[in-house]
Amino acid sequence: MDMQTNFLDRLFESGLLIETGVDGLYGRSGQFEDVIAAFERLIDRFGGADGAEAMRFPPGMNRAFFETSGYMKSFPQLAGTVHSFCGDELDHMSLLKCMEVGEDWTKDQEATDIVLTPAACYPLYPTVARRGALPMSGKLFDLQSYCFRHEPSKDPARQQLFRMREYVCMGTERHVTDFRQSWMDRGVEMMKLVGLDVTIDIANDPFFGRAGKMLANNQRDQNLKFELLIPITSVTKPTACMSFNYHQDAFGTKWGLNLEDGSVAHTACVGFGLERIALALFHTHGLDVKHWPEEVRKVLWG
Amino acid sequence: MDMQTNFLDRLFESGLLIETGVDGLYGRSGQFEDVIAAFERLIDRFGGADGAEAMRFPPGMNRAFFETSGYMKSFPQLAGTVHSFCGDELDHMSLLKCMEVGEDWTKDQEATDIVLTPAACYPLYPTVARRGALPMSGKLFDLQSYCFRHEPSKDPARQQLFRMREYVCMGTERHVTDFRQSWMDRGVEMMKLVGLDVTIDIANDPFFGRAGKMLANNQRDQNLKFELLIPITSVTKPTACMSFNYHQDAFGTKWGLNLEDGSVAHTACVGFGLERIALALFHTHGLDVKHWPEEVRKVLWG
Repeated sequence: MDMQTNFLDRLFESGLLIETGVDGLYGRSGQFEDVIAAFERLIDRFGGADGAEAMRFPPGMNRAFFETSGYMKSFPQLAGTVHSFCGDELDHMSLLKCMEVGEDWTKDQEATDIVLTPAACYPLYPTVARRGALPMSGKLFDLQSYCFRHEPSKDPARQQLFRMREYVCMGTERHVTDFRQSWMDRGVEMMKLVGLDVTIDIANDPFFGRAGKMLANNQRDQNLKFELLIPITSVTKPTACMSFNYHQDAFGTKWGLNLEDGSVAHTACVGFGLERIALALFHTHGLDVKHWPEEVRKVLWG
Repeated sequence: MDMQTNFLDRLFESGLLIETGVDGLYGRSGQFEDVIAAFERLIDRFGGADGAEAMRFPPGMNRAFFETSGYMKSFPQLAGTVHSFCGDELDHMSLLKCMEVGEDWTKDQEATDIVLTPAACYPLYPTVARRGALPMSGKLFDLQSYCFRHEPSKDPARQQLFRMREYVCMGTERHVTDFRQSWMDRGVEMMKLVGLDVTIDIANDPFFGRAGKMLANNQRDQNLKFELLIPITSVTKPTACMSFNYHQDAFGTKWGLNLEDGSVAHTACVGFGLERIALALFHTHGLDVKHWPEEVRKVLWG
């Protein structure tokens, strides 16, 4: 049995994660949630004084905005569109017949206006664009939501529905790259405080297909994405638990995000994979929170 | 302009809800979230000593369990199935072409193993069934998740993605009906504490079609569903902010939930519509939390 399946089984046995019969889709125990809540308070302690505007979007977003985002160009395999039954009573009868005989009843479901949110910041850009020009001093946002990625896996650190906490910064190039650098420093400091071994490395997004390889190479060549890595199911292949992304003016141009002087805003975002961080803590300190090192417990629960 | 649209516009103007371009799909401000968090703490104060096991499921569930639940028989119009792109690079090229010329690109999306959770307790029953017999003294569970219902509306109290907090009780008929009654009393007391006008009334679920009318009548005749109603956008048609449901042994039979003596477990659940309760508070006490009555602020924020 490999390390991923082994860790997943131990999480099921301890009750921290709850099996649902679908790989990458799990319930969480109250204890698991308590660790995530404690880590989010730690994030607040580091970022709370920066004056970010908090917004919380639900786990689905406007399909029209999702289409504009270009997600289907880069990551079509990961997206989840939401479909519904839109028929009348006769259609309903044939749907039920279909289910009864075990045929595919989903083929007549019709796409709704909603797709699952692929990353917490996706609904933000069109929301901010509609407000008008950004101040020259920039703007900072604090986001968290459940996100969906269709990549069934036995790796507990690769879930189909998981929570991402994000800070998103919009402003001048200098402003947003400083923001990104400060969170790379903070991220290392935070993880050290809770006793986690970290490295930071250059990274790329999982772009689809052969053309995607070129996009990934470009992203790496330009230092646009860094990840903070922590061992969860492998020491040689540690898991990305935070990412630090500089979009240059790509999102500003796409969404029409302008500064007050008319220039296109640059943007950057910093994301915390909350389930991954909780899993890193359980992997490193053990499945019983009561036995975690006293100094780690103190940082998380004061 | 009707009362619903009027209230929704005021919520947008105040920033408490954030427009996304889709009816019933909104972002929430930090202040809105803070009210929900405070009300959840009030729920904990009332229910915390009952020894419920807390579980938190993500906003999607196993499609196989959803099919077994019979939801598509009763509420096909409300369900949301999650679909993904499963093609190769050639398929991807034609998908992008489709998007470029503005044709329907969603028709080739394939159903995944996941559907959106229609009510917080749906993933619970198969989870508990797999654990084996329930103690004669029964079991209590504490749940919360985002839920999806496909019913676009300008009524801010009818959202497509919203959060439901639930307690679910499994045990003997006497045990679970006592549980339901005690929460009807607690619900009235809690709402009084936060200054909300409530009535409790018999109710039915929105069963689909003409056959559904009969199911709704049966449900009413047998007193299986009660709702706690609070005026939000109408005094004559107040909104259901809590519901109290007795399933008899229907879920016990469907999922194989048995007590230790081999009898089928009865089940009941009590649900809080968290967004609706927050909206009732904003409607009753005003959009500025600082100006809410001192005694209400004290109950919520101590």
